[in-house]
Amino acid sequence: MPEDWTSYVETIGREARRASEALAQLTDAARSAALRRIASSIREHRAGLLNANAKDIDAALQSGLAPALVERLKLNDKRIESMAVGVEQIASQVDPVGQTIEGYVRPNGLRIEKRRVPLGVILFFYESRPNVTSDAAALCIKSGNAVILRGGKEAFHSNRAIVGVIKDALREMPSEAHGSAVGLTNAVQLIESTDRALVPHLLKLDRYIDLVIPRGGESLIRAVVADSTIPVLKHYTGNCHIYVDRSIAGMEQQVRDICVNAKTSYPGGAVCNAVEHILVHRDVAETMVPRICEDLKTKGVEVRGDERVRKLVVAEATTPQDWDTEYLAFIVSLKVVDSIDDAIDHINRHGSRHTDAILSTDARAIEQFTKRVDSASVIVNASTRFADGGEYGLGAEIGISTDKLHARGPMGAADLTTYKWIVTGDGHVR
Amino acid sequence: MPEDWTSYVETIGREARRASEALAQLTDAARSAALRRIASSIREHRAGLLNANAKDIDAALQSGLAPALVERLKLNDKRIESMAVGVEQIASQVDPVGQTIEGYVRPNGLRIEKRRVPLGVILFFYESRPNVTSDAAALCIKSGNAVILRGGKEAFHSNRAIVGVIKDALREMPSEAHGSAVGLTNAVQLIESTDRALVPHLLKLDRYIDLVIPRGGESLIRAVVADSTIPVLKHYTGNCHIYVDRSIAGMEQQVRDICVNAKTSYPGGAVCNAVEHILVHRDVAETMVPRICEDLKTKGVEVRGDERVRKLVVAEATTPQDWDTEYLAFIVSLKVVDSIDDAIDHINRHGSRHTDAILSTDARAIEQFTKRVDSASVIVNASTRFADGGEYGLGAEIGISTDKLHARGPMGAADLTTYKWIVTGDGHVR
Repeated sequence: MPEDWTSYVETIGREARRASEALAQLTDAARSAALRRIASSIREHRAGLLNANAKDIDAALQSGLAPALVERLKLNDKRIESMAVGVEQIASQVDPVGQTIEGYVRPNGLRIEKRRVPLGVILFFYESRPNVTSDAAALCIKSGNAVILRGGKEAFHSNRAIVGVIKDALREMPSEAHGSAVGLTNAVQLIESTDRALVPHLLKLDRYIDLVIPRGGESLIRAVVADSTIPVLKHYTGNCHIYVDRSIAGMEQQVRDICVNAKTSYPGGAVCNAVEHILVHRDVAETMVPRICEDLKTKGVEVRGDERVRKLVVAEATTPQDWDTEYLAFIVSLKVVDSIDDAIDHINRHGSRHTDAILSTDARAIEQFTKRVDSASVIVNASTRFADGGEYGLGAEIGISTDKLHARGPMGAADLTTYKWIVTGDGHVR
Repeated sequence: MPEDWTSYVETIGREARRASEALAQLTDAARSAALRRIASSIREHRAGLLNANAKDIDAALQSGLAPALVERLKLNDKRIESMAVGVEQIASQVDPVGQTIEGYVRPNGLRIEKRRVPLGVILFFYESRPNVTSDAAALCIKSGNAVILRGGKEAFHSNRAIVGVIKDALREMPSEAHGSAVGLTNAVQLIESTDRALVPHLLKLDRYIDLVIPRGGESLIRAVVADSTIPVLKHYTGNCHIYVDRSIAGMEQQVRDICVNAKTSYPGGAVCNAVEHILVHRDVAETMVPRICEDLKTKGVEVRGDERVRKLVVAEATTPQDWDTEYLAFIVSLKVVDSIDDAIDHINRHGSRHTDAILSTDARAIEQFTKRVDSASVIVNASTRFADGGEYGLGAEIGISTDKLHARGPMGAADLTTYKWIVTGDGHVR
């Protein structure tokens, strides 16, 4: 491994830019054909992918990785099949590239069009789940972008095997599909080193890379933001809340079901849209807190509570840090609040602007909550687990943006595009 | 002036955030009423604004500022009236806030809505023209955002006077219009110092500020990008091109008119969408280069040319730096190119991704140029000077983004918003 990463990352960036230019010349039919070939290839190489994944799992168990994270890391036949299906579904999505977003003629006869075009080159940092590798590669190809992947070290062997399969499929594309001798294989590149020292070099490649998406822990994201001269779309983890309003008459069972679903429906609770904190209005605390806690404990969830919660149920005491923590595990903290304003203020102060829910039958409370809670997704009377590109009908997602610019919340293929103004006149001068 | 800017910028940021929360509670009617009050106030304080501007003009003349820049800086009755009219026009625009961008019901009955909301707090760096101060303040108020303004030192007295007038108008707003004792006066704040040392402190206020828009010279923008932990939308200057294709039979006079208009229709050529470089296909060089040059020289434009141009006309020789230079003056460089591919490659290599035009009657050439030129605005058979929010029908513009994320090209009020996903269920679990 070289100690000076400058020339290594320079090559990666230059090749990605070149591949993005080749991709931009392809029709949607050709990009989709490439994706279907990748899906077949994933199925054909199942055994190899499982072998590579086994190395990661062994290393994870030896290093004492948390069970929920080991579970996230694991591939099996079903997960490999669902990776292939995911790539096929992305192939079948409507092509966002070339869409006219707006188009009109000005009073002077100038025709104005906003036309969707690929961003160019995307640098994607992510952690743990290997299926993210194929999803991200497929979404980028679908939207006409080249991608540079930097996965977590825990999934290193799995990611390398998946990207190998993808590149083989791209290499075998008939040349008429990409029009020239320029290969598409570098449309998807993996950083083949877990050395952190190369990251700052990557983040200075603004002449080749158009967007950085860091999806993972807060320290990773802060480091990326500090070092990057490329625009960044942050994907902070989800410190998600449910607020149980005073007005829930007739929906008590729904409240209980939603709280349990939001915490436990993903294995180990290790997912960014799982609820971490439940805020209960004082008027319904006496009836609801014991029931919610019992339901959660039955499912094996550790319940923590503030002082008022602990007068109603047996629970570990929360510390101030609890309210800023995304557990990514079967742990939840409960708090009794005096008003909806207190709930909103708590969420805006401690949340991560990801996904927060209100459970209520009161239209005015719902209006106030949806207006004032400053989060990408505000959910009414449903589980926080719905905050997801697939559930929103976007197809697969590259992630869930906690930023406000460009794309907020679940990001699909269309969010990996920009637009161009095409202005057509007939000798117009101003 | 304090030497440690930390507490000064902290106060500015905190007050802006607070004002943005007050603004977010206002109806469009209240925000528009505030803008109309600002417009009246600008008219009433014309004398004061002219006095303040005279100080800047004196200083500019003494410091030997370029004539075109002095011209940009100057206020007069007509320009003050057009500032007031500009604010009124923004008041009358359709309110972008609260719009449902998309809305649909999923097969499981979940209702999904993308609803437009203000970004929050915007930090705006800009140079020279004082009317930008009132335009930017009005656009931010219209879209529900608080703004922190940092103008160029040349316009310091003018900007301070304009912001003073705006704040007075906001202070006098009847309290029912903003619903609470929280004033709106800090919705618009000016950094009252030209000390560069405070800039890095401002750029770390990511807990208060949602977006930085630097509009000005390249060194300013690079410094902002390097220091900022807040997302940045860059507004680089425009190194704009016109490509005169081989197929221009019957539109020779239009070509001449467009070249002259694109260079000379703004006083001094000191505007970002003026043409700086004209690329002429070799097949029409012999006829067109002499005519274009003559037209430009008649208007007082200095013409520079490459070797092949200088075989056809008397012109200064270009140096390699010319092709990367935005003159912002009555200077233009001409070059003869062998093909449309050469023109496109030249533009993508030397341009600033701002605005580039093709003049041609050949549909295939136009298709190739609009597809491959990687610029925010690609103009066909019209002057580059049309790249402008007003001309595109956006109303006033906060600037012209040369970035690809979030907003590209001319940015209006809607580009100062983000969205929120509002997801409504009826006890839905996943």
